[in-house]
Amino acid sequence: MQNSDQPRTEINTLGEFGLIEHLTRGFENKQANTIKGIGDDAAVIGDKDPVTVVSTDMLVEGIHFDLLYFPLKHLGYKLVVANLSDIYAMNATPKQITVSIAISNRFSVEALDELYAGIRAACENYNVDLVGGDTTSSQKGLIISVTAIGEAQKNKLTYRNSAKPGDLICLTGDVGAAYLGLQIMERERQIYLSNPGIQPDLEEQKYLVGRQLKPEARRDMIDVFAKAKLVPTAMIDVSDGVSSDLMHICKQSGVGCFIEETGIPVHQDTKLMALKFNLDPITCGLNGGEDYELLFTIDPKDLEKTKLLPDIFIMGEITEKSEGLKFHTNGGRIVDLEAQGWKHF
Amino acid sequence: MQNSDQPRTEINTLGEFGLIEHLTRGFENKQANTIKGIGDDAAVIGDKDPVTVVSTDMLVEGIHFDLLYFPLKHLGYKLVVANLSDIYAMNATPKQITVSIAISNRFSVEALDELYAGIRAACENYNVDLVGGDTTSSQKGLIISVTAIGEAQKNKLTYRNSAKPGDLICLTGDVGAAYLGLQIMERERQIYLSNPGIQPDLEEQKYLVGRQLKPEARRDMIDVFAKAKLVPTAMIDVSDGVSSDLMHICKQSGVGCFIEETGIPVHQDTKLMALKFNLDPITCGLNGGEDYELLFTIDPKDLEKTKLLPDIFIMGEITEKSEGLKFHTNGGRIVDLEAQGWKHF
Repeated sequence: MQNSDQPRTEINTLGEFGLIEHLTRGFENKQANTIKGIGDDAAVIGDKDPVTVVSTDMLVEGIHFDLLYFPLKHLGYKLVVANLSDIYAMNATPKQITVSIAISNRFSVEALDELYAGIRAACENYNVDLVGGDTTSSQKGLIISVTAIGEAQKNKLTYRNSAKPGDLICLTGDVGAAYLGLQIMERERQIYLSNPGIQPDLEEQKYLVGRQLKPEARRDMIDVFAKAKLVPTAMIDVSDGVSSDLMHICKQSGVGCFIEETGIPVHQDTKLMALKFNLDPITCGLNGGEDYELLFTIDPKDLEKTKLLPDIFIMGEITEKSEGLKFHTNGGRIVDLEAQGWKHF
Repeated sequence: MQNSDQPRTEINTLGEFGLIEHLTRGFENKQANTIKGIGDDAAVIGDKDPVTVVSTDMLVEGIHFDLLYFPLKHLGYKLVVANLSDIYAMNATPKQITVSIAISNRFSVEALDELYAGIRAACENYNVDLVGGDTTSSQKGLIISVTAIGEAQKNKLTYRNSAKPGDLICLTGDVGAAYLGLQIMERERQIYLSNPGIQPDLEEQKYLVGRQLKPEARRDMIDVFAKAKLVPTAMIDVSDGVSSDLMHICKQSGVGCFIEETGIPVHQDTKLMALKFNLDPITCGLNGGEDYELLFTIDPKDLEKTKLLPDIFIMGEITEKSEGLKFHTNGGRIVDLEAQGWKHF
């Protein structure tokens, strides 16, 4: 397979997004009903309303999750939620999922029952049907692929590439908590590994651990938007981190942005725990992933509508591309926004 | 994760289909637009024509393919074809695919370029768009998940559960060749492993090796059916083997069947090579997988229409459930049909 005469470029030299861009270059969309292909939270397909929205994710044991501290039931729940979040980020309603798994013989039927109990709980909570999938064996560990299918009115869809200078940058809920939850579980794991007799006490940090172990997607916001007759100009879900996900919007919309430190919603528990870990709370808020909040932009004329809506924070503003991506600190400094999202490679 | 006090049931005690049945028991379809969920070649979704058809597969290196003899470009082509075949088996037209991959650092960008060259060739040949996917790292080997999305008129869809006693059982093309192709490549692999100096000579067995390395899906038949105004009463693609796939139709339709040995189309090259390997050619035809032909049933009143169509073989007839699943040999014996499809567990 590997011929030593041929050049060899390591995958990690491109990064995840660079690799996807590289591999899918040269592919052209030719189907009349392909409205949106690669490059958003989900693909959009259809000739007429409602159109179909499709998103897919692959998760690998040892890369995305550690079963030593991640119970299988929670894992099942979370992987569905993460996929549904991509559908909500299109301002669409998920209706169906498919789940494929590859498993080594280390897993018993009872272990898989736990996983599927979590998947079922998510299906019930979010009102989606499990309509297909594949089951096979793996050489090592558990690999899961989930595809979510939803529907939306074409003129309500929110893409990543349609933010305009002057738009306000908004965020639902708070960020950084899931990242701190992960740090806590990682710390407990280390304690457990060096002394298996000690039981982890996660109860005290229920909020942070809960944000990591049992996150919820912002289905409620899709209804809130509909009732307020508000269509964001662009939207993405916060899976990689606010910085990284905001950069996707800016890059694809061809715009710049600035966000204010005071605009980053960080929960009190997140702040306290960040300090315990010697981390900057705002850095956790900007770069922590897996919060599954919605990051979106609105036309300034919709500001009044937005003010009346619950749980929405205005973080900053979209600017001209030439102004770059900036972060205004409380101290009055202006620094470049940097992405430190999840790196799988 | 594994508590020694809890019962442990090994996965291989259920088998692939038993496991899927076990895990998805308790899931209910509640969405008004879920027309067909788990249990067919593809799920069917939609309120009005054309409806959306979705199928998904997961393939694992070392379980489904061996990169020592399976070139990455061919692998990319084949995994797309295998998924499109599921869409054709619904009498639907595939329009889009998503491809997710997990890869270890053993793979270079150049190796992935080969894989995606094969995926692109299949997209171009079958006129489908690559609209999404995910890319991540794996702990070991290459894992690929493909989802195919198609569309169909609701009243043209062909399910597995709608064959009726008296229907004729038909097959497109010939079967068993892909299995023999695999045997040849496996033999060459053994020779290569014991003597890396010897180059494999696969040229002589172009047909058989080609059926394994570069199979095609029967897109042509969907057009043939449409032109002949013929809608099969049930249909499935031959991925696990004629016996196994016919059993799916019979089980889900609640019927029996008989097929005639003379009705099993086996290519001359397949016959000769089977004998070289000391295998029964008909057993290869019945149980060899990955031919990606279409196995379907028709109402006897459509027999005249079918006779005029190219490349269709009548294998037997659907019977009452009480008559079981029978195979009539040339020698006049009647034996039970047995499935020996692919076992991944």
